[in-house]
Amino acid sequence: MGVGLLGASVALAMREKGICEKIAGYGRTEKNLKRAKETGIVDLYFMEPAAAVGGSDLVVLCTPAGLFTEVTGSMKSGLTKGSIVTDVGSVKGSLVSELETLMPDGVHFIGSHPIAGGDKSGIDEARKDLFSGARCVVTPTPKSDGDALKAICALWRSVGGRVEVMDPFLHDEIFALVSHLPHLVAYALVNTVCSIDPERIGYSGGGFRDTTRIAMSSPELWRDISMFNRDNLLKVLEIFRDNLGRIERCVKENDREGLEKEYARAQQLRLGMKQ
Amino acid sequence: MGVGLLGASVALAMREKGICEKIAGYGRTEKNLKRAKETGIVDLYFMEPAAAVGGSDLVVLCTPAGLFTEVTGSMKSGLTKGSIVTDVGSVKGSLVSELETLMPDGVHFIGSHPIAGGDKSGIDEARKDLFSGARCVVTPTPKSDGDALKAICALWRSVGGRVEVMDPFLHDEIFALVSHLPHLVAYALVNTVCSIDPERIGYSGGGFRDTTRIAMSSPELWRDISMFNRDNLLKVLEIFRDNLGRIERCVKENDREGLEKEYARAQQLRLGMKQ
Repeated sequence: MGVGLLGASVALAMREKGICEKIAGYGRTEKNLKRAKETGIVDLYFMEPAAAVGGSDLVVLCTPAGLFTEVTGSMKSGLTKGSIVTDVGSVKGSLVSELETLMPDGVHFIGSHPIAGGDKSGIDEARKDLFSGARCVVTPTPKSDGDALKAICALWRSVGGRVEVMDPFLHDEIFALVSHLPHLVAYALVNTVCSIDPERIGYSGGGFRDTTRIAMSSPELWRDISMFNRDNLLKVLEIFRDNLGRIERCVKENDREGLEKEYARAQQLRLGMKQ
Repeated sequence: MGVGLLGASVALAMREKGICEKIAGYGRTEKNLKRAKETGIVDLYFMEPAAAVGGSDLVVLCTPAGLFTEVTGSMKSGLTKGSIVTDVGSVKGSLVSELETLMPDGVHFIGSHPIAGGDKSGIDEARKDLFSGARCVVTPTPKSDGDALKAICALWRSVGGRVEVMDPFLHDEIFALVSHLPHLVAYALVNTVCSIDPERIGYSGGGFRDTTRIAMSSPELWRDISMFNRDNLLKVLEIFRDNLGRIERCVKENDREGLEKEYARAQQLRLGMKQ
């Protein structure tokens, strides 16, 4: 459901591993669906959610997260007993329970978040190895069906992912910090250049380019993610503001030692990461 | 003067292009200077600034910017009439006039800022092609000697740089925005993870990695840059805070349309850049 970067990559990866027979695509834009069919990403396509899911063993929600509820409502009547529904959204929390509740009898929902894709989007960026080595967080609830959970973990493992099972609310708390906050900050950084003089972006080097790369991400997608993870995001924003404020105070008060300490603390943690 | 990433790369690049006879290195750490000599980056080295510059046609200040004045004071007695002094520092402004004033009679200072190096540092990262295709900003003052200015422009061009001549104060205003601000923000982002739980950095993906790559930069170097460009930095920090605040307000007030607009504005400008 949704044949963009993630949806098309799931299709390509599953086909590559030989773990699917037939792939049906659903989307809002026929041009994109046609392209998906021409390039062999999907075998057939539908512009009606219920028609797309008819007879499917597995349904993967790959639209922007803001549409999950709507798409699920529309596809509900087409879902086959015994089928499993998952997603690739960057927000989990209460959305998982909500989608779980929307499933008809005998259909199980298990939330997933493969950490892949980055700032890219669109079908043309899709890759069969997108999930290879990627962390795939699977977020069951106390109500989740054990077999469906196993199947979804096996799905991500089979396309090369490193599966980690996690509470959906803890997921959102963690990703507000390590993913959603950096996006907001990157958007705000580019907008700061807009506010002052867009032409000055021409003077930026590799540092600015790296720091703002994720500001190329889809505004629609990140609007949805920001709204869904509102409370966690507002919390980490406050802590970010404190940290930036501490640095700013050192600059303002000519506290060289304090400033070097702030920078060194960040450098040390960051050097511990790969790349 | 200073045989780190930039200093060693200037040496390698000039040697590669055959535009120097002999290269003398000055530094504070003998181990590093020995390594520079062993690897052929310098022909000889000194731990006394005045001894290092004796008889040189060209002197390039490559220590952290915070040491430029001190090193210049110490090397002054060794400078030969007719020699030209430049630097590779990321801050210009009043520092350029200050260094200019420190030059003895017949020695000319011309400020330079090659936009190269990124988050890397240290002699082992040095590359003879570091300046190839890099923008090199040269910042003369009304007092600058015309021939010295031409020579320094020619120097950067000869090692592959794209030279741009700019007022030193405009330089600092622009780089506060496109370089210094992103560094502060990246350091603050990593420190936000420190504040909450350093372990959570393990969940970060490519977005966090890109956004915080420059937080691996040298704390000492960036302390100096931040202090030198204090006023411009405080100004752009305020504008950044406004921009982040606008995004935050949209999240807080569930203003989906406003939020998407903020993100789209940033995306559009950022997509216009290469990479």
